[in-house]
Amino acid sequence: MSTTLLTGPDVAAHSTRESCWIIVHGKVYDVTDFLDEHPGGSKIILKYAGKDATEAYEPIHPPDAITTNLPLEKHLGAIDASTVAKVVKEVTEEEKHRQAMMDARPPLENIINMHDFEIVAKAVLPEKAWAYYSSGSDDEITIRENRTAYQRVWFRPRILRDVSKVDWSCEILGVKSSLPVYISATALGKLGHPDGELCLTRAAANHNVIQMIATLASCSFDEIMNAGAPGQQFFLQLYVNGDREITKKYVQHAEKRGVKGLFITVDAPQLGRREKDMRMKAVDDDAGAEVQKGQNVKKDEGVARAISSFIDPSLSWKDIPWFKQITKMPIILKGIATAEDAVLAYEYGVQGIVLSNHGGRQLDTARSGLEILIEVTDALKARGYFPDPKFEIYVDGGVRRASDVLKAIALGAKAVGVGRPFLYAFCSYGQAGVERAIQILRDEFEMNMRLLGARTISELVPEMVDASSLRAHTVMTPADNLFNITYQPLTVAKFKESKL
Amino acid sequence: MSTTLLTGPDVAAHSTRESCWIIVHGKVYDVTDFLDEHPGGSKIILKYAGKDATEAYEPIHPPDAITTNLPLEKHLGAIDASTVAKVVKEVTEEEKHRQAMMDARPPLENIINMHDFEIVAKAVLPEKAWAYYSSGSDDEITIRENRTAYQRVWFRPRILRDVSKVDWSCEILGVKSSLPVYISATALGKLGHPDGELCLTRAAANHNVIQMIATLASCSFDEIMNAGAPGQQFFLQLYVNGDREITKKYVQHAEKRGVKGLFITVDAPQLGRREKDMRMKAVDDDAGAEVQKGQNVKKDEGVARAISSFIDPSLSWKDIPWFKQITKMPIILKGIATAEDAVLAYEYGVQGIVLSNHGGRQLDTARSGLEILIEVTDALKARGYFPDPKFEIYVDGGVRRASDVLKAIALGAKAVGVGRPFLYAFCSYGQAGVERAIQILRDEFEMNMRLLGARTISELVPEMVDASSLRAHTVMTPADNLFNITYQPLTVAKFKESKL
Amino acid sequence: MSTTLLTGPDVAAHSTRESCWIIVHGKVYDVTDFLDEHPGGSKIILKYAGKDATEAYEPIHPPDAITTNLPLEKHLGAIDASTVAKVVKEVTEEEKHRQAMMDARPPLENIINMHDFEIVAKAVLPEKAWAYYSSGSDDEITIRENRTAYQRVWFRPRILRDVSKVDWSCEILGVKSSLPVYISATALGKLGHPDGELCLTRAAANHNVIQMIATLASCSFDEIMNAGAPGQQFFLQLYVNGDREITKKYVQHAEKRGVKGLFITVDAPQLGRREKDMRMKAVDDDAGAEVQKGQNVKKDEGVARAISSFIDPSLSWKDIPWFKQITKMPIILKGIATAEDAVLAYEYGVQGIVLSNHGGRQLDTARSGLEILIEVTDALKARGYFPDPKFEIYVDGGVRRASDVLKAIALGAKAVGVGRPFLYAFCSYGQAGVERAIQILRDEFEMNMRLLGARTISELVPEMVDASSLRAHTVMTPADNLFNITYQPLTVAKFKESKL
Amino acid sequence: MSTTLLTGPDVAAHSTRESCWIIVHGKVYDVTDFLDEHPGGSKIILKYAGKDATEAYEPIHPPDAITTNLPLEKHLGAIDASTVAKVVKEVTEEEKHRQAMMDARPPLENIINMHDFEIVAKAVLPEKAWAYYSSGSDDEITIRENRTAYQRVWFRPRILRDVSKVDWSCEILGVKSSLPVYISATALGKLGHPDGELCLTRAAANHNVIQMIATLASCSFDEIMNAGAPGQQFFLQLYVNGDREITKKYVQHAEKRGVKGLFITVDAPQLGRREKDMRMKAVDDDAGAEVQKGQNVKKDEGVARAISSFIDPSLSWKDIPWFKQITKMPIILKGIATAEDAVLAYEYGVQGIVLSNHGGRQLDTARSGLEILIEVTDALKARGYFPDPKFEIYVDGGVRRASDVLKAIALGAKAVGVGRPFLYAFCSYGQAGVERAIQILRDEFEMNMRLLGARTISELVPEMVDASSLRAHTVMTPADNLFNITYQPLTVAKFKESKL
Repeated sequence: MSTTLLTGPDVAAHSTRESCWIIVHGKVYDVTDFLDEHPGGSKIILKYAGKDATEAYEPIHPPDAITTNLPLEKHLGAIDASTVAKVVKEVTEEEKHRQAMMDARPPLENIINMHDFEIVAKAVLPEKAWAYYSSGSDDEITIRENRTAYQRVWFRPRILRDVSKVDWSCEILGVKSSLPVYISATALGKLGHPDGELCLTRAAANHNVIQMIATLASCSFDEIMNAGAPGQQFFLQLYVNGDREITKKYVQHAEKRGVKGLFITVDAPQLGRREKDMRMKAVDDDAGAEVQKGQNVKKDEGVARAISSFIDPSLSWKDIPWFKQITKMPIILKGIATAEDAVLAYEYGVQGIVLSNHGGRQLDTARSGLEILIEVTDALKARGYFPDPKFEIYVDGGVRRASDVLKAIALGAKAVGVGRPFLYAFCSYGQAGVERAIQILRDEFEMNMRLLGARTISELVPEMVDASSLRAHTVMTPADNLFNITYQPLTVAKFKESKL
Repeated sequence: MSTTLLTGPDVAAHSTRESCWIIVHGKVYDVTDFLDEHPGGSKIILKYAGKDATEAYEPIHPPDAITTNLPLEKHLGAIDASTVAKVVKEVTEEEKHRQAMMDARPPLENIINMHDFEIVAKAVLPEKAWAYYSSGSDDEITIRENRTAYQRVWFRPRILRDVSKVDWSCEILGVKSSLPVYISATALGKLGHPDGELCLTRAAANHNVIQMIATLASCSFDEIMNAGAPGQQFFLQLYVNGDREITKKYVQHAEKRGVKGLFITVDAPQLGRREKDMRMKAVDDDAGAEVQKGQNVKKDEGVARAISSFIDPSLSWKDIPWFKQITKMPIILKGIATAEDAVLAYEYGVQGIVLSNHGGRQLDTARSGLEILIEVTDALKARGYFPDPKFEIYVDGGVRRASDVLKAIALGAKAVGVGRPFLYAFCSYGQAGVERAIQILRDEFEMNMRLLGARTISELVPEMVDASSLRAHTVMTPADNLFNITYQPLTVAKFKESKL
Repeated sequence: MSTTLLTGPDVAAHSTRESCWIIVHGKVYDVTDFLDEHPGGSKIILKYAGKDATEAYEPIHPPDAITTNLPLEKHLGAIDASTVAKVVKEVTEEEKHRQAMMDARPPLENIINMHDFEIVAKAVLPEKAWAYYSSGSDDEITIRENRTAYQRVWFRPRILRDVSKVDWSCEILGVKSSLPVYISATALGKLGHPDGELCLTRAAANHNVIQMIATLASCSFDEIMNAGAPGQQFFLQLYVNGDREITKKYVQHAEKRGVKGLFITVDAPQLGRREKDMRMKAVDDDAGAEVQKGQNVKKDEGVARAISSFIDPSLSWKDIPWFKQITKMPIILKGIATAEDAVLAYEYGVQGIVLSNHGGRQLDTARSGLEILIEVTDALKARGYFPDPKFEIYVDGGVRRASDVLKAIALGAKAVGVGRPFLYAFCSYGQAGVERAIQILRDEFEMNMRLLGARTISELVPEMVDASSLRAHTVMTPADNLFNITYQPLTVAKFKESKL
Repeated sequence: MSTTLLTGPDVAAHSTRESCWIIVHGKVYDVTDFLDEHPGGSKIILKYAGKDATEAYEPIHPPDAITTNLPLEKHLGAIDASTVAKVVKEVTEEEKHRQAMMDARPPLENIINMHDFEIVAKAVLPEKAWAYYSSGSDDEITIRENRTAYQRVWFRPRILRDVSKVDWSCEILGVKSSLPVYISATALGKLGHPDGELCLTRAAANHNVIQMIATLASCSFDEIMNAGAPGQQFFLQLYVNGDREITKKYVQHAEKRGVKGLFITVDAPQLGRREKDMRMKAVDDDAGAEVQKGQNVKKDEGVARAISSFIDPSLSWKDIPWFKQITKMPIILKGIATAEDAVLAYEYGVQGIVLSNHGGRQLDTARSGLEILIEVTDALKARGYFPDPKFEIYVDGGVRRASDVLKAIALGAKAVGVGRPFLYAFCSYGQAGVERAIQILRDEFEMNMRLLGARTISELVPEMVDASSLRAHTVMTPADNLFNITYQPLTVAKFKESKL
């Protein structure tokens, strides 16, 4: 690596496709040869050719992305900051509006449920970040179904049990957790908050909750681990790279750092079409934020989804033995969607599965994890595979209340993954938001377990829920519009004219 | 008790946390030591430190609350009213608006159904009272489900029966009632009307309807009993106190006063999270109106629900024999939600059960009483426990029409509890409102029984209803918004341009 | 009857409760003793005491109502029209608006379906008439369910049949009809059109459709019969009077005049509570228009429904043999709502039944005729009672399309009664409207039978419909409002700013 | 044919019903005797009597319609264009608005799904064209049900399969297709784009997609065939003419030109009532655009649907052997709606069937093709007729996403017909729009097959979908309006007053 001190004008002289230098984090890089390899396309880099790209680079790359991917000889050296022309950044109208909304946020103590975080996040996030986080695939049927599925399961509470003490703590893969909930992996946290995923890490430490680290986090794996408190426990979400050596190195490093579970994503051989994101021109200008985290992506024409080599579409069952060979961490398959695959997973000897549809971001009209849970436990039971303390089942997607979690547990889940609500919590209020979210869940657990008559997690049995409507996918027969126009609805008693 | 006559300045000198006196109903109390024990928190008391707190105290405490809970030595004596600085109370905009709405209420004879009372109550109640009365827990799914469940049961009316005479009177626990309906317990009636629950008492007397007295009524138990007409009958709703001696005294006093049934609430080991109430800052400022009626509550941090000792979470089946020992009143368990617990109740030898979810105020997505009724009668029948004249089943929640009541009775209920509609009736029109409500129900009973072909309550048989859809919990698959945007609805024939 | 010629001042001298004369159709009557017997209450009569009441009397009484009900000695004689002070009638704003809407009606050829008539009627009818015609009982669930039930039955059309000729004519009780539809009885036609039910009679004559004459028609039975064309056929709808002699006389007169079927209403022992009507103060001022057609009604307090002696609540199965004795007309029971009563009807030897809920005007949440049809044919078949050429089944309520009729026929109905659509047709356009309605139905029958592959009524078999969803009474689980607020729906592609 | 050169004044002299000449495409015709035979009625022709009718003629007739139908002696000769008075055409407000919307269209690359084309088409089409294309019959229940049916089928995706290569190409009737989709026949393409159906032809050539040519296309059969690229393949949709010789000639000509499949429409013995179209006065002025393509139609009174001889209502099963005799092309019956007719079709020896309801334009409340598919494959399987490589099943109606196609294929369809989306694509953007539509589908196929775990069409098996809700026709019980008025929905946390 060069130790030269370069100046602004030096860099500015290389502002073309033919010779393209950029500044990131105070270092200068020659990215000319990398332009066509950039997963996010060359266009976005060329926008910063000859300039400081740090601000654009930051939220969507881990800090070491550029140093790792660019050959050492392209690291041209440090920049003399005083020589770089300060860009007088104009504050846009959108940014002003956003800031005003930030100032007008409800006080944190007025936030009383998970939805409140989302409504605040929607108001204070940059439009693109909101589109990226909130979008689902195609018609967004599945992303909403994840929520509505919980409404199809009803409680059968038991009464007259001594519920003066209730305890909702549990173990997940042998790790103690104060809630039967783990923080599920979500990507690109710095789009929403300068501290990114560290907000989660710090809050999780204070409340003894397990954080699952995302391969595509804005903060690097080590940054997050380093921010952990003594004894704090983590899981790792893994996108399997086409180059298995990279994956091996990543996994074994995680194991060495003490990660307690390896959650391999199996429902994303290709990224879904997320139209809200596409409408934001994320594709055209930024080639899909997510994609930028990988490398060596062939750009397809138009809006076609790029398949990054870091998400290997050839991943298959025959890779499982290899994973068992390279790590002793428990292996969990994240994204199981049928009883058939749940049985296969058990028979392949993994330690668990997450019933999931990737937060509604992949295959639209795929079913909710909660609905899948029923057929999975049925099929496993029929083969004598359930219950089995060595094989844990998790569910994620659509959880907004502790009561949702209790339903999943009653139906056989060991714990539940919660992603967006914690994400929205830190986008809105940083670490404090996440802590508030955990506190709300804790309050809800206490109340609901008392009202259900369940004193411990183990008392949450299938008989406590009525899931007989869970499998019904009801779609209304189209409205009889003519009849609806002619019918005149009843009204209530009329008030007199008021003096007001 | 002191007989000293104190002055305004005397009291005003004690306006701090260190020494805090207040005036209530013309008496002065030293509540310094009680501040931290106040179920509603110290903040609300300190607001009145050194002042007259009567107006704030009145609607949410029975008159004897302070005298009962405060040691005699803290009763400092009477106040010389002339020495207290008159607070010139400013009439707020909200209050002016409310008064204008009160003046504009529809004439009582224009009220033709239960919903009319509710719409008037919503307009004329103070916002906080409306929030407290109308709120349900969490997402308020259950509070609405209580109503919609009745829409899933349809009539199968019989024709060509001589219905010139129809009779809908009945006996409830051996007490004659002019309707198969009792007035169910609701709390804190003075929030909505200065006479509070006495409006119910007086109307009930005139129409031979049974009133269930609430533990948390604004009027004290004796006030209500004393307001009763000769021969008027009551039931008692009971929250069981952590201190069983208090409960014993209360129950035995009620029995002595002639109460005909003891309805023990079993679905409220902890109060539910009612977000409408919480949004009103009821929690912050008033610590939850309901809670203020108890004593000795440890305040939890933030929005966590306080558990009052008067609602003992340790209450369990093993307490039932004790109740049978301390009273000869029939014992009814209020808040049964499963067939399993109905069977247990029968086997524990109580006289009845109320299938209920506490008006949707406790566990959200708990099922409606009407839905539970089916599984309960099935299970009891299977064991030969039903029908049994010594074991009565009631249902409450969501009833707005006599036809609702008839459905419940056809499915096996002995009578139905109606709470909020009567509450809204007196909040809107006082005693006259309640009488009007009863009259409307009576008219509806007459008409519906004729149209059903049922001449007496005993002719209301299961075959008169089709309840085959009752257990279906239908949730729509999320809307196909793009399709809905593109589809252009049909319209009706166009009128020509009118001269008007 | 007196033959005196009286003057305006003579009559005006009797304008009090103590002596009350009124003028109707140019005759003077002393109604003093009748005031308390008037089914519509005395108030409405006293409004016209000493004056000409013809205009108010006309729409809601058959012309002979007063002459029939008032003793001869109270018929005081004719009025000298020239002596009656002309009342300068002020045209109200409502009336002006109505007239403007009448002028703006769509041209009749633009009316292309039944709903169009209804939307026009709603615009051009006096508010009270609209409320009276359109209202259903209680929450108006059943009146709308009548329509929606048809949406739960779907077609299974057959193809490649030679449908060059299709024929949808049929016989109803042996009477030829050009449509498998009869005009069902509706009351008080003059509220909506000065010619009242005669509009139906004249149109029916031109199109060979059978009209069912209502007991409560504005036009008298004989007026209607007299308006009939040679060979035109009628049915009679009957409310059974408490005084069976009146009923006997009425029925035998109808038989003598050639009526071909006696439809006895069995679902109205008491009139339903129709809140739209009640909100219009129809009750207070007019005591329910319908009721005015009877006599000798005891007025109940407040809004309680009056039970007219002409609707005898004691009518029962034991009256059936009596009817068979007094008439040879086929007897049809109108208002059967269960399989049990259909079986009884068959066993009592009547000639047919109408599965109906009285157009949703009686028992609310009673099921639709179409839904009842399934259980009725099942039960009759199980007993070998169906099919039986001597026992016909009809359905009414909610029909708006020929396709609805075809569904009912496929499921076993012989024909279908259509009421309101024809009523709205003549309220909007008089006789021409009714003819247009029939023409539209005819066009729809032709098209739909071709598309169904049914060449004659007899080819409409149960296999042509899928009624498997007909019995489902779906009620949505209450909406998850918080989720709905936070979810941001997808949108379509954005247009550029347009120059327009 | 005359070779005379006629002048404007010559023609103008024949502008009456008695002698009516018109100019079309530079030729003069005497249409006096044809006036009453014109399927679209005489009125529309008389509007152009003595004038140039080309512009009105063009979009709704194939170019050879007039030359084919009019006897040679009525072909009067060419017109001297210079002698025809130029009509200064006034640009209407509607047209100006349309043009402005055309200019404001979203750039084609912003179109990311099929709905986008529809929203653009709605904005840029003449109102009558939109009404004609978009309308369905009666209440338009079926046209919408076609879409919603797909929402009742959910995916059961398989994971951990190597999906690096996915292939969604297939063969339809032995013809290779790059998509399991063919372009289904839609009529009168020039109403929406001056190039009409040729837009489809050219795009199909570039993407190896099969186009089905409509009998009622605006472009003549030969025009379309001539525009085809070398090797491009076509199917033909056939309305069977009352005069079988015309049909025979047409079919044999098509076979000679190389058409690969004959799709005989069997669900349109009469055209449906399409009210949107009727409201546009299409009937009065233009006698239904579709009808104008035929000949010799007896005009029925009023709005009754004309039955053109080109749609022979007598077509029946006994015609099938005749078809097999006149052509060797595979015969497919388009418009099968029941298992019974599917079985018959198989037994009659045709090569395939299209499960369809004619895009919701014929029998309303007929079921969707997707729903019919289940009963059809069940019935065929039960008889050993399925699967059979010589008998293919297609489905059409409501498809908007590749995922819809995959559902149909998983349930047994060989391919799916897509009509309106391609129509709207070319109305909005011409040939480029159609190519974009195909590209979007291709992208969706790639993604969805990967996410489903299906590498080829043959891996799309029934177990990959959950169709258990497909047959449910859910209609809501009518809303409880009074309850809905009184209930006050929950809201989210309130923001402070913002400075903005």
